Amino acid sequence: MPIKTAKGFSKLSKEAKMEWIVNEYLGGDDTNIKLLKSYWHNDAETQKIHDEFIENTITNFYIPFGVAPNFLINDRIYCVPMAIEESSVVAAAAKNASFWMERGGFKSTVISTIKIGHVHFAWYGEFSTLKNFVNSIKDKFYSETESITANMRSRGGGIKDINVVDRSDLEPNYYQLEAKFETCDAMGANFINSLLEEFAKILERELQSSNLSDSDKKIVIIMCILSNYTPECIVKCEVSCKIDELSEDPSMDKEEFAKKFEQAIHVANIEPYRATTHNKGIFNGIDAVVIATGNDFRAVEACGHTYASKDGQYKSLTNVEIKDGNFKFWIELPISVGTVGGLTSLHPMVKFSHQLLGNPDAKSLMKIIAAVGLAQNFGAVRSLVTTGIQKGHMKMHLLNILNQLGASKEECEKIKLFFSDKVVSHSAVVNEFCKLRGIKNNVSIKNNS
Amino acid sequence: MPIKTAKGFSKLSKEAKMEWIVNEYLGGDDTNIKLLKSYWHNDAETQKIHDEFIENTITNFYIPFGVAPNFLINDRIYCVPMAIEESSVVAAAAKNASFWMERGGFKSTVISTIKIGHVHFAWYGEFSTLKNFVNSIKDKFYSETESITANMRSRGGGIKDINVVDRSDLEPNYYQLEAKFETCDAMGANFINSLLEEFAKILERELQSSNLSDSDKKIVIIMCILSNYTPECIVKCEVSCKIDELSEDPSMDKEEFAKKFEQAIHVANIEPYRATTHNKGIFNGIDAVVIATGNDFRAVEACGHTYASKDGQYKSLTNVEIKDGNFKFWIELPISVGTVGGLTSLHPMVKFSHQLLGNPDAKSLMKIIAAVGLAQNFGAVRSLVTTGIQKGHMKMHLLNILNQLGASKEECEKIKLFFSDKVVSHSAVVNEFCKLRGIKNNVSIKNNS
Repeated sequence: MPIKTAKGFSKLSKEAKMEWIVNEYLGGDDTNIKLLKSYWHNDAETQKIHDEFIENTITNFYIPFGVAPNFLINDRIYCVPMAIEESSVVAAAAKNASFWMERGGFKSTVISTIKIGHVHFAWYGEFSTLKNFVNSIKDKFYSETESITANMRSRGGGIKDINVVDRSDLEPNYYQLEAKFETCDAMGANFINSLLEEFAKILERELQSSNLSDSDKKIVIIMCILSNYTPECIVKCEVSCKIDELSEDPSMDKEEFAKKFEQAIHVANIEPYRATTHNKGIFNGIDAVVIATGNDFRAVEACGHTYASKDGQYKSLTNVEIKDGNFKFWIELPISVGTVGGLTSLHPMVKFSHQLLGNPDAKSLMKIIAAVGLAQNFGAVRSLVTTGIQKGHMKMHLLNILNQLGASKEECEKIKLFFSDKVVSHSAVVNEFCKLRGIKNNVSIKNNS
Repeated sequence: MPIKTAKGFSKLSKEAKMEWIVNEYLGGDDTNIKLLKSYWHNDAETQKIHDEFIENTITNFYIPFGVAPNFLINDRIYCVPMAIEESSVVAAAAKNASFWMERGGFKSTVISTIKIGHVHFAWYGEFSTLKNFVNSIKDKFYSETESITANMRSRGGGIKDINVVDRSDLEPNYYQLEAKFETCDAMGANFINSLLEEFAKILERELQSSNLSDSDKKIVIIMCILSNYTPECIVKCEVSCKIDELSEDPSMDKEEFAKKFEQAIHVANIEPYRATTHNKGIFNGIDAVVIATGNDFRAVEACGHTYASKDGQYKSLTNVEIKDGNFKFWIELPISVGTVGGLTSLHPMVKFSHQLLGNPDAKSLMKIIAAVGLAQNFGAVRSLVTTGIQKGHMKMHLLNILNQLGASKEECEKIKLFFSDKVVSHSAVVNEFCKLRGIKNNVSIKNNS
């Protein structure tokens, strides 16, 4: 096994990095270099752009890029770009978009877009002293950062509020300078973090030059950082129809379907084991659009899940109401995304995604993302309470196994027919495949169900 | 604006899909087709593999693929593959891997790998009746699913436990058949869901054919589904060293650094605003490896965040202990990943990642992922409590803005020097760039800070 470590690895050229990896970890097998290079973009300039997004880049990782057409959101039709590796997600989005397109579509509303950040610090005096002091210098936080905020202010954004918060009940001497921001169409992380670091400098300096007592002048800045939890940057999206319209299938009892759907949502509201998977499915849709539009899915995930746990127990992000023969289903969650800055003007496929969506502003993008999340959840719950989740999954699972086995088109058709009324498992498919080819099912076909 | 909707879109060929999109949504601009095709793999067979992972695929979305060398985990050195678009993440992973390599490395332990799933159902009798009945037929859940579990059992896995759970206190008539599984090196979603659907059939059938009263025979299966929340599939990873060894910088007060680091972790434990961002940073590292190894990051995210909220308030996933001159820092979280099945044997870059890691089993991969998450968090908190987060970020941010402006190598160097002691904002960089070129800073350079 390799034991060699790298010094100054990041300083090596891309080629030298690949060579080092192959020599140290892959037994010098050059086919790996060929593989890595085969994943480069043909145009060297384009590849350079991708290389420079991060450090130690050696190639590109492909995520399948698909589209879900027929998303009617606030009376406009979108064809939504989605980057995701999981099968059935795009199919479910497209299917449920079409379903709701025929029933009035998605109604999305952005409730607020305020972002938040903190200077976390330790201080050793009375809170009232601190509060009065911060209030007395508050103007300086605004005036001394005007060069940083100029651009954002010209677009209608900037610093919205600054307050000092007492958290010393939780941790001795712990206080926060809590600031709220409007970052318009930018996600705003750099803007907010830069400002918070300036706020900390101003706070420290003003304390030192104040006429407070020596003990009240003592402050330890712990850290300055935006919060990815943005419960004031909220979007709500809903669909509704008459219960009678919930299916075109005349054999389906719509009342019973609505009832089971409602039960499934209740279960996700009271049982964290279910809520986790329920919301995971929502993020299947959300993240696919977040990634395709060049946003940070870790930020969106962390925020949404914290929001799901805000009442003391982890819960569903969607809700349903069945009343007077009407079915109403909605999602409400914070989503902080940008349509300028970051990757949006650099990554060619991100630019393409924005164009495909008609170059939405941040609020419009929030509305689209929420609609895709809701569509995904509707589709998942509908499958779960009717045919079961496996029917759809298994189709793709079977196809993947057949691809892996190198089955011909004809073999694929025969095996698909065979499994149309049976449970798909890897071993069962391998068995059937071997039977069809008249070969012995040996261990050389790797087991993975 | 486009108003055309698509019928039978999924049935179109890839080329026809692209044409439809370009005609309906992109004004017929053919350069978009060229763009999409430029992102295809040169080898048609390879591209076909990527196309078939999901539905409506038109091209590939590139995520930069980098590596972080020098990860010493349980006495073995890894060069870790990471697929991530956010700058500084790979650099931070590599830097902190090297730091801990010189201090004994990461110690990772897998505590358990049990997965869980439920048949959620409504029932209308006494719980004791239900419980006795389920116990009386329990063997059938095992014996009648032997063909599905054969392969998994031969590898040491299978169904580990089945119990009926009373949740009627939360929702009238709501009960669960809760099953636990060992899925060995597979993530196991298809395996578990297939079994749960069989369990539901067995439960319904046995109830009908039982000698229970008619009212006790009534059951409504709400849904059968695995849980992505796997609090029994846990990995722990820790690093430790003497406080004196926490930095090579003689000018740094190590005690003070350790104290501030501890405060920062305390803050993340008591303040959800901070905990969200704290854990988000951890998932920057975790997801990058999860994606590169072909696993499902939405599942890993949902699970980790639910775990972070399990005590009723959303908290940090890492913890620190400073005692007797020693610094100990650890992460504990559930991570459910597979090293067989799914994309692992299909996606060529996923296969590469597994090879680079020495084809780890699922437990080893959990250990690696946890180490990367911990390294990421150590780096983030270290930056936050010392130089601030912006110093590192701004370097990459500046580079991205300069690339976007098309700055030459020489211009880049000059502007980097200029900003070495100033706050980077988009407008400030544009200003400096225009000054350097002697051009007027006009609105044609898109604003995005």
